[in-house]
Amino acid sequence: MHEPDFTLSAGPTMSSPRVQQAQGRPMIFDYDPVFQERFRETERMVGELMRTEKDVVLMQGEAVLGIEAAARGVVRPGMKCLNLVSGVYAKWFGDWLRSYEAEVVELEVPYDEALDPAQVREELERHSDFELVALVHSETPSGIENPLAEIGPLAKGAGALVFADVVSAVGGTDVRIDEWGVDICVGGPQKCLAGPPGMSLVVVGEDAWAAIEANPNAPRASFLSLLDWRETWIAGGRVKFPYTPSVSDVHGVHAALGECLDDGLDAVIARHAGAARACREGAKAMGLELWPRSEEYAANCVTAIRCPEGAEVKATLEHVRERYGVMLSGGYGELTEKLFRVGHMGPGSRSLYPLVAVSALGRGLADLGVEVDLGAGANATLGVLAESREGVAA
Amino acid sequence: MHEPDFTLSAGPTMSSPRVQQAQGRPMIFDYDPVFQERFRETERMVGELMRTEKDVVLMQGEAVLGIEAAARGVVRPGMKCLNLVSGVYAKWFGDWLRSYEAEVVELEVPYDEALDPAQVREELERHSDFELVALVHSETPSGIENPLAEIGPLAKGAGALVFADVVSAVGGTDVRIDEWGVDICVGGPQKCLAGPPGMSLVVVGEDAWAAIEANPNAPRASFLSLLDWRETWIAGGRVKFPYTPSVSDVHGVHAALGECLDDGLDAVIARHAGAARACREGAKAMGLELWPRSEEYAANCVTAIRCPEGAEVKATLEHVRERYGVMLSGGYGELTEKLFRVGHMGPGSRSLYPLVAVSALGRGLADLGVEVDLGAGANATLGVLAESREGVAA
Amino acid sequence: MHEPDFTLSAGPTMSSPRVQQAQGRPMIFDYDPVFQERFRETERMVGELMRTEKDVVLMQGEAVLGIEAAARGVVRPGMKCLNLVSGVYAKWFGDWLRSYEAEVVELEVPYDEALDPAQVREELERHSDFELVALVHSETPSGIENPLAEIGPLAKGAGALVFADVVSAVGGTDVRIDEWGVDICVGGPQKCLAGPPGMSLVVVGEDAWAAIEANPNAPRASFLSLLDWRETWIAGGRVKFPYTPSVSDVHGVHAALGECLDDGLDAVIARHAGAARACREGAKAMGLELWPRSEEYAANCVTAIRCPEGAEVKATLEHVRERYGVMLSGGYGELTEKLFRVGHMGPGSRSLYPLVAVSALGRGLADLGVEVDLGAGANATLGVLAESREGVAA
Amino acid sequence: MHEPDFTLSAGPTMSSPRVQQAQGRPMIFDYDPVFQERFRETERMVGELMRTEKDVVLMQGEAVLGIEAAARGVVRPGMKCLNLVSGVYAKWFGDWLRSYEAEVVELEVPYDEALDPAQVREELERHSDFELVALVHSETPSGIENPLAEIGPLAKGAGALVFADVVSAVGGTDVRIDEWGVDICVGGPQKCLAGPPGMSLVVVGEDAWAAIEANPNAPRASFLSLLDWRETWIAGGRVKFPYTPSVSDVHGVHAALGECLDDGLDAVIARHAGAARACREGAKAMGLELWPRSEEYAANCVTAIRCPEGAEVKATLEHVRERYGVMLSGGYGELTEKLFRVGHMGPGSRSLYPLVAVSALGRGLADLGVEVDLGAGANATLGVLAESREGVAA
Repeated sequence: MHEPDFTLSAGPTMSSPRVQQAQGRPMIFDYDPVFQERFRETERMVGELMRTEKDVVLMQGEAVLGIEAAARGVVRPGMKCLNLVSGVYAKWFGDWLRSYEAEVVELEVPYDEALDPAQVREELERHSDFELVALVHSETPSGIENPLAEIGPLAKGAGALVFADVVSAVGGTDVRIDEWGVDICVGGPQKCLAGPPGMSLVVVGEDAWAAIEANPNAPRASFLSLLDWRETWIAGGRVKFPYTPSVSDVHGVHAALGECLDDGLDAVIARHAGAARACREGAKAMGLELWPRSEEYAANCVTAIRCPEGAEVKATLEHVRERYGVMLSGGYGELTEKLFRVGHMGPGSRSLYPLVAVSALGRGLADLGVEVDLGAGANATLGVLAESREGVAA
Repeated sequence: MHEPDFTLSAGPTMSSPRVQQAQGRPMIFDYDPVFQERFRETERMVGELMRTEKDVVLMQGEAVLGIEAAARGVVRPGMKCLNLVSGVYAKWFGDWLRSYEAEVVELEVPYDEALDPAQVREELERHSDFELVALVHSETPSGIENPLAEIGPLAKGAGALVFADVVSAVGGTDVRIDEWGVDICVGGPQKCLAGPPGMSLVVVGEDAWAAIEANPNAPRASFLSLLDWRETWIAGGRVKFPYTPSVSDVHGVHAALGECLDDGLDAVIARHAGAARACREGAKAMGLELWPRSEEYAANCVTAIRCPEGAEVKATLEHVRERYGVMLSGGYGELTEKLFRVGHMGPGSRSLYPLVAVSALGRGLADLGVEVDLGAGANATLGVLAESREGVAA
Repeated sequence: MHEPDFTLSAGPTMSSPRVQQAQGRPMIFDYDPVFQERFRETERMVGELMRTEKDVVLMQGEAVLGIEAAARGVVRPGMKCLNLVSGVYAKWFGDWLRSYEAEVVELEVPYDEALDPAQVREELERHSDFELVALVHSETPSGIENPLAEIGPLAKGAGALVFADVVSAVGGTDVRIDEWGVDICVGGPQKCLAGPPGMSLVVVGEDAWAAIEANPNAPRASFLSLLDWRETWIAGGRVKFPYTPSVSDVHGVHAALGECLDDGLDAVIARHAGAARACREGAKAMGLELWPRSEEYAANCVTAIRCPEGAEVKATLEHVRERYGVMLSGGYGELTEKLFRVGHMGPGSRSLYPLVAVSALGRGLADLGVEVDLGAGANATLGVLAESREGVAA
Repeated sequence: MHEPDFTLSAGPTMSSPRVQQAQGRPMIFDYDPVFQERFRETERMVGELMRTEKDVVLMQGEAVLGIEAAARGVVRPGMKCLNLVSGVYAKWFGDWLRSYEAEVVELEVPYDEALDPAQVREELERHSDFELVALVHSETPSGIENPLAEIGPLAKGAGALVFADVVSAVGGTDVRIDEWGVDICVGGPQKCLAGPPGMSLVVVGEDAWAAIEANPNAPRASFLSLLDWRETWIAGGRVKFPYTPSVSDVHGVHAALGECLDDGLDAVIARHAGAARACREGAKAMGLELWPRSEEYAANCVTAIRCPEGAEVKATLEHVRERYGVMLSGGYGELTEKLFRVGHMGPGSRSLYPLVAVSALGRGLADLGVEVDLGAGANATLGVLAESREGVAA
């Protein structure tokens, strides 16, 4: 079987030539001065993208590593935590909190809805002693974006540490760590930034560091340890790594961040928003139903579409991949067979990629007997793209 | 301005990752044994693709070099030549023939038609003493394919040398040099093979070599000389180059040919035919008119579409490139402002690339005020793709 | 500052064009069928290189992740462990064992010596109830190779689980997991295999799996969890990943392993041995002293050379990098300022790379006032290379 | 057989990662605006490197194409030409002049000497009516550099057109087209610039254009035609190509020129001079004899070394390539079996590459029974490198 022609999945997603070429650079020693400076520059660019002055820690494993490291770092047994759940990832995070023996209160909404700041406010007032509030900014498994801009300040104002999973948010939607009172968060390079998956872009503020230092269970001398990075790398003047960085991925992330910043963060976010809207209009016009109950909180990274009656997610995806060389995603976790996800991240948010994604799904469903209006779908997708690209340099 | 997202032009066209990576290999000395064996293997693969046992000469410059070299090689002053013209390139070839002081008879059809074997037969009978018959197999400027399979044997049977420009035919449609009696021909790596443009894939049979040797005007000690390649490279046992090969392009052409042969030549040709039909159906459904008067002779490499009333080719192409990052082509030579050409060559004939091409053109025309039915176009394109890909491995 | 011209460090080390190009391949979704098959094939190749039928687990972080995961997996509080120490890495491993509350006996030799099987036998007889014996096959920080071939069977025969760090051994010296009774081990792709650093090549046998399953402290639902990989990936038929693989590094490791196997494992090992001997003879002829007290146990991956009187490791390395573009290594941990290490791994063990390494160090020392016989060093290095390459295809 | 580890030949030579990556960029249409701007920028950079305001024409074939195009362009039958010969290439150029029916006077020196400006002056005075004076700045086949700085103004002052082959001079030694009165010259990208071979960097001044226009035999409507480039590309505002550019090579040449200019032309020239001197001292110290009778005119691009008694060039080169993976060059044309050439161009002039070149040759000769002092050679080479790199950023 051939490599895919298009990877428009929920991530890892297609990367740009610039990123690919960076990944293919000669391997160099992690103590080479050129590499070290590139590493430090990558940290600075992450700060710029997240609009934060806090410490950036580039942990050398996919975002789950960073999330686990952050959670194990800050969460003490008995810590009172509010876990805000609107999807699969947040739900799993709650399991982690409980396994670390935190006292967990969970505020959950259906997975096709976003968190409601008013509800969060109520919950914060009801308890008043939460030490940690955790949420997922953009729930990749269901294509839902939560209002971190509103919930962050509420939680911080209530005296809690704010923990945000911004894995699929960064580079695709506004992420303002400092302005929104986020204390610790983890971004992923393989979603809207369209870099390689093997890195966690962790941001840790002073309050979070204090919590970690005070936590006897915080990983130390461990691949999961943020403190190792602080002590060896940061405190040592950023010349000695606690663990060997993934050289090639550092090159790739550096290129991905550089591409985003060169294009201009605001323009990149607008491009993702336009691509997402194009996919939504296309899907609806084809006769499909979006997963999010309201488009107000549909995510910019992936568009989740309910699997229509009579179709099967897995079989459809395999057919689309085999017949058309287009790799899309299904649901994840408990949503696996309920929905399709088409990605529009990084270069996949450019040009006519949204048309490819929508049409591949539609044509695949049609091949398998589902009635869809392919023409209306394509027309609607193109209509949004035409409008959203007006006056934008390609 | 960004690099284009899609290059679906009349060629050079988008190349595959395999070809790109080959182009990026370390540069090596042309006398390195690894390079020399790769060069010889490239020759063998060209022979396989053209289904010929004749000599292959890889001249190191874009196909025009090979065509000029072949023409100057065989054409003596006073040589009686039949030039078959159905498009821009054949017309220019006639100018060359005349400038070499050949005695030229030209059989010309309108540029939106293909050559007619019956007419050719008549012409061959009328004169009976043609020493050379020349034609273009696939006229890239107008997307027309001529029946070389019928004309080749006719001309050869009439005692003439047969000269064929197969630049945009090879890899996209059947090219059977030996079976069809072609004596000398030139293929291009940058069209259906989707390799780099800097090479001429020249095939020279014994009759053609004899003509070249007998021609006092044939280039010798010249970058245009086929004889230099024969004497230095071929006769010398293929170890000494008369001119330095374009190392990187040899790597790229080697990869492009390998990809085509690995996929299977017949499958690749079928894929090009399917993509071409998809574009034609898409264009017609949108309400546009094809350039070829009959689809029977529409080419497999590019689809030529008449520029509709009220539109301008150049302005439309620029708009499509700027707004959507898709690079298409206009006409060429005297056809420049008359038609659009969308390419579906190499990887561009795979997956949903034809949909991207057709939709980019359609949406661009719509943006500029032309009424087109984008939905019908997309639907028709997808319909053909679905059908033509049935049972074909992606 | 320029990228280095030569990376002949202790690893990550210079990779081959094949590996670089693999790293630069288009990023694809981890659920793409092509990717999944490549992942499975990578596992099979690791098994082939380590000569084992046991399970291979490709953990997605540099080798330290795998080592920590393996150690946390098998080590219960109170478990009686024999930690064999001949260098920095083994010493650190003992700290881990103690932090997991194992009962640790340590058999230590000076860091410029290798472990002695006779001593190990005595220790095993003295206690007779060790549940785990741990050792480092090749101590990269000091360029010492321990006799795993002898110690493995001894320890296994004594009823203990055998844990081996083969990070810098695999691909450079013989590693026979099944024959030598190793139960769990971790290889690194960025040393003799000359791939990217971001992966742990873990091998786990049935006895080790049993120990992990029986260990209540073994990581579960954690980036450190071998069980997660067993349950989700292996038991599930190798179609679902517990964590997102580092796509680009998988491509790179796949290529690195393929290159090694294509060249032939035995030939590759012989090449590393020859390069190591060339460096040792070169260093001695220059007037420098090797770190290992006996060359019998000098490693194949890096050659450790004592820092001569009057020289400083850090300053010398910086000078060599700045003036000559050659990146070498110093010591590590407590050995940092005591020795230099020149790497001869992967492509760095080919051609005249050992001459570059030895001469760069020698010339750098000379520039800084140390008396060295550069000519004798080069001559000796070349002499060994000439002899060791006889009859070997380049 | 493996790819070579080191290509230190007379060119094409090893290219830098930057150039390799540029070659591997996605193929784009030659009418893409991004490509066109890159093409124009490449022209401007050539002008900068040659220190000229004259027109730059990038002909799309290796330098021989440019030289033939320039010669055929300017040389009329009966034109009185002074051909200055100090090597194989200049000798061949005379054959061309004669075949174009020029009236040729040849001033020849032995091929191990450089041209003597005093002799040239005499010859110019003796005839006083030369219309063209031609010379090769750097004779790659024999590693000799001619004093173009002196001869150029003399010839121009005598009223002749000055034609210079600067193929292997540009980027390795000073080339000042305008200051030295050169009217037409051709540089090569695959020598000191370490780019791909498939392009001719032609510079044409107004006097040369005038001669070409006045020449009825100047190629027109031909791949050899400078006039086609002038009329279609330059006069048309640099938007329309007469022939399709070699897209990938344009990317590569653009990168190679950019690298040279980023490093600083003067620094790059100094680096080449240092590397050349290192190779000469190394060769002499080994006991070998340089080809140039005086080092004053030894070239910066390659060092030519006489083949010692009892050795054979071809056999030695094959042995060095097979045993050590190092590709060097022998002589060329009539010098083929008389000398070795080690290249030190582009990245090959950096770091310890000269040591690799000298030692590979020396060790290879030793393997085949020639007595050489490898230690003295290495020591001398390293000594010059140490000195010449002092204070230079790596």
